Amino acid sequence: MASARASICGLSRDDFLQKIEEFHGFTAPGLVIGGLMVDMAQELIRDNMGEGIDADAIVEARHCLPDAVQIFTPCTIGNGWLKIVDWGKFALSLYDKHVKRGYRVWFDVSKAALFPNLYNWYMKKVSKKDLPIDILLESIFEAGRDALSSRAVSILNTYSGEKKGGTDICDGCGEAYPVVQGSVCLSCRGESYFELS
Amino acid sequence: MASARASICGLSRDDFLQKIEEFHGFTAPGLVIGGLMVDMAQELIRDNMGEGIDADAIVEARHCLPDAVQIFTPCTIGNGWLKIVDWGKFALSLYDKHVKRGYRVWFDVSKAALFPNLYNWYMKKVSKKDLPIDILLESIFEAGRDALSSRAVSILNTYSGEKKGGTDICDGCGEAYPVVQGSVCLSCRGESYFELS
Repeated sequence: MASARASICGLSRDDFLQKIEEFHGFTAPGLVIGGLMVDMAQELIRDNMGEGIDADAIVEARHCLPDAVQIFTPCTIGNGWLKIVDWGKFALSLYDKHVKRGYRVWFDVSKAALFPNLYNWYMKKVSKKDLPIDILLESIFEAGRDALSSRAVSILNTYSGEKKGGTDICDGCGEAYPVVQGSVCLSCRGESYFELS
Repeated sequence: MASARASICGLSRDDFLQKIEEFHGFTAPGLVIGGLMVDMAQELIRDNMGEGIDADAIVEARHCLPDAVQIFTPCTIGNGWLKIVDWGKFALSLYDKHVKRGYRVWFDVSKAALFPNLYNWYMKKVSKKDLPIDILLESIFEAGRDALSSRAVSILNTYSGEKKGGTDICDGCGEAYPVVQGSVCLSCRGESYFELS
């Protein structure tokens, strides 16, 4: 069976699941699928572009997927090698950071329809109560790459890095901010997320 | 000296730096400061609100700070307990996720001015070549919390969670997307980050 792989992201299934739980706090099904997607993108790059490619990542949702990349690749939000495009789509791209080419892998609902538990979970047709995590995980691993699709992509310049620019003191709050924002910082000009207690 | 602490985020200085390098890929000075900020916010919560508080996090910059939170707290981007407000400010808040109160800690440039290497690095008045990382780290640890400020804050509702809503198939690309976006997904309506190769 094509989907029964010996290792995922270079790890046994147990170690793969343990890493997810350690970083994410619990075994989120979306993160397990995300790990399978990272594994597939890494293999596509290795097989088609060569070993040792320095890959950056873009994920198309804020939930789960960023952690799959942060756990199983060197890319993190804080080091800038992982970016989030907030589309709410279950897709990610890994690409050679120098030539800007790589692979986009996505969860393909039309393929997942062959795996009822997986499909019903993803499409929110079943409650957590009615689909225990162990049964769902079984379905996820049974499907494996049979529920994923991929395409070779070129990454456009929009996401190919930016300069941070200078730092100055905000006339409003007296804190340091990026001067590119104008004479006062964004938080002084817009809505804040906090108020002083 | 107030700033010479026995442990940072419960770790020795060596282990603290090693965790940063393992996750982030290198010892970014901003992430070292970020770790000190997390440590201070955690202590403020513990001392003023009690032990065992379940804390969520908001960081005010995309660079470095998200990783400080992801390394030294259970909060990650993917599990949703960490959120990023893209203000480019070196500040973060940890807060009790139930009562929405906690502490904002920020790098205070007026205080940092007492530590010339730290100040010149932060204000980009010196090149990496002229300020080796070891000298800068020494200045960061010498300053410690003496370069930070804090305030008790209440977190406003804007950032207190959201519902994901239903999933459907996009009329444009045929991929799954959040129906709240309308009849086609955001990527079909806007600019994409990739083109097919």
